[in-house]
Amino acid sequence: MIFFDNASTTKCTESSVEIVKEYLTEKFYNPSALYHESIEVKKGLESVRNVILKRLRGDGKIIFTAGGTESDNIALLGCKKQKGGRIIVSANEHAAVYATAQELKQRGYDVVFAPVDNYGKVIISEFEKLVTPQVTLASIIHVNNETGAINDIQSLSKIVKKVAPKALFHSDGVQAFGKVEVNLRQMGVDMYSMSAHKIGAPKGCGALFIAKGVSVNPIVFGGGQEGGLRSSTENVGAIMAFGKAVEERYTCLAETQAKISQIRAYIKQNLSSIEGIQFLSADDSSPYILSFSTPKVRGEVMQHALERRGILVGTGSACASNKATSRIAEALSLKGKYIDGVTRLSFFIYNTLDEAEVFVKEYLAVYKELSKYGA
Amino acid sequence: MIFFDNASTTKCTESSVEIVKEYLTEKFYNPSALYHESIEVKKGLESVRNVILKRLRGDGKIIFTAGGTESDNIALLGCKKQKGGRIIVSANEHAAVYATAQELKQRGYDVVFAPVDNYGKVIISEFEKLVTPQVTLASIIHVNNETGAINDIQSLSKIVKKVAPKALFHSDGVQAFGKVEVNLRQMGVDMYSMSAHKIGAPKGCGALFIAKGVSVNPIVFGGGQEGGLRSSTENVGAIMAFGKAVEERYTCLAETQAKISQIRAYIKQNLSSIEGIQFLSADDSSPYILSFSTPKVRGEVMQHALERRGILVGTGSACASNKATSRIAEALSLKGKYIDGVTRLSFFIYNTLDEAEVFVKEYLAVYKELSKYGA
Repeated sequence: MIFFDNASTTKCTESSVEIVKEYLTEKFYNPSALYHESIEVKKGLESVRNVILKRLRGDGKIIFTAGGTESDNIALLGCKKQKGGRIIVSANEHAAVYATAQELKQRGYDVVFAPVDNYGKVIISEFEKLVTPQVTLASIIHVNNETGAINDIQSLSKIVKKVAPKALFHSDGVQAFGKVEVNLRQMGVDMYSMSAHKIGAPKGCGALFIAKGVSVNPIVFGGGQEGGLRSSTENVGAIMAFGKAVEERYTCLAETQAKISQIRAYIKQNLSSIEGIQFLSADDSSPYILSFSTPKVRGEVMQHALERRGILVGTGSACASNKATSRIAEALSLKGKYIDGVTRLSFFIYNTLDEAEVFVKEYLAVYKELSKYGA
Repeated sequence: MIFFDNASTTKCTESSVEIVKEYLTEKFYNPSALYHESIEVKKGLESVRNVILKRLRGDGKIIFTAGGTESDNIALLGCKKQKGGRIIVSANEHAAVYATAQELKQRGYDVVFAPVDNYGKVIISEFEKLVTPQVTLASIIHVNNETGAINDIQSLSKIVKKVAPKALFHSDGVQAFGKVEVNLRQMGVDMYSMSAHKIGAPKGCGALFIAKGVSVNPIVFGGGQEGGLRSSTENVGAIMAFGKAVEERYTCLAETQAKISQIRAYIKQNLSSIEGIQFLSADDSSPYILSFSTPKVRGEVMQHALERRGILVGTGSACASNKATSRIAEALSLKGKYIDGVTRLSFFIYNTLDEAEVFVKEYLAVYKELSKYGA
């Protein structure tokens, strides 16, 4: 089995599994209790916060959430905003931000969408035109989940702060964090969302960075965990595994990037010969994602054909798989048959160049077969 | 180590751990993806929904959440309510409902608190007085987390529906579910909250039952998972372990209840000799909780003294441990030194009568020592 859909989720690493097991059994205690065992667990959570802050060079705090979606929601819904103010998000945000922005529109905010180029990257000059003194919040995805486009968060944030100094800047870092270098201070973000299950740690766990001085209100209420910002018994095992995954990813970030870049380059080069293929991932995008569209074979048909040969790929965000892909296609200016022709490959630490070779061979064979019939 | 604080959280069962491991590794797939492996995972989630609905005799649907707190929040914040209408919650609700009700008060609802008796049980005649045609929602905890009091949900729900037929009835079943018989149809609830980590499954997972025809809006927005009611990649391993735990708990519910009842009865009988001890748990409460207060030794001091002897107990809800206990004490009409004298013992399937014997011996010895000084 070759798994090239790691942007949807990743297999847990061995160390993750071991840690989860430990915290489901010997160290199962509720971190809010007052005996020694619980206090030790609570200390563990603090250590993970520190690991993340240190690795991402963040001045502020980390709160743990149930995942990227909740982090995005707390950020967008919970942050202090000017009533009816302008909110800018990019046109191809992940649904967790896009749908929340739509909700904010319903609540009376002036939500506008920043256009992106053919590789899914926010066009700075177009973004600039949307920035007015009425902007109260901007949320721009760091690495786009469909194409891997790396947005220039530092520049975008500067543009916003210059015109609207009180505006907040949030970035969804779910596909960036643990895969590319993240320097929160340099990027100038007020809030940054992360997810554990995209980097080899368990599902059901995420984090939100909140910069010093930024005021956020909770969206759920209860026992007051996470400084009152996210009430619920903490998902301790997943959080501890998350901390370990962060350490592991950042300890060998450059080596992994180099390996993954090689895999991506190999595939890109070998698929370039396909007539009319359009790559949706730029060369300077995150190496972890390679998206492309072919006019002759539909992405879904290709997905199932490859599946029968033991290769799993994506056709776009798994979170949007069941819905119309029209929003993303429109944002990327895909036309005609290219709209349904998208395949997304996404890689992780387990993938190898050998797999890339097998993939290319199988893909080309399948493509040759299917394109005959215009599937 | 004797662990008598199972109402705060439980150690995972062996079967839970095995299932989690399986879904972190071999079956790690995102249930929203479209290939066979993901579709199988999605089917697994459906099977757990069916298990819960069948065991609890529910006509409606199950949505998975991050835990009891989120379930309570979706129910209270998300359900369709009459603007400014009356909301009744019991005075000693868990913080997940109590704090959410306070938030709803801020949002303009007429929130009132139903008084409870000395054992923490809602007094039906007092509840009745609060029910007006303006009631839009009532939320009464099924088994109280501090005392184990089992509320007569069926009667309370009937009272509400008679006077305010359109009102919704929610119950927080976190301490009930998997421990006592739950018949959702008979209870007449519109929504019912559950948590996995209180019944031997992992933290970070819960469920909300929503009866047929009941309209609930989401409180977070994104990929549209859980029928749009709870966007986020599902915490698959925890959910599958949750399903197994439900099966296991309900397969031997009566046997476990009998065993736990014996443990509780033994402890209660043997502590009865303590001068001035006040039991906060009635004989007809959930056998899984035994709370009491002593005037001469503070609960926290007792907790730490027992801890040194390898026994972990609670002083009240772990979720509220760090905060003033005044609300609960007031609801239970605790006076003077009884306010700080609370110890909560809570049991689970792992506990034995041998542990109860050791506990009694140690407790009495510690009490004798500490009460000399009025600790």
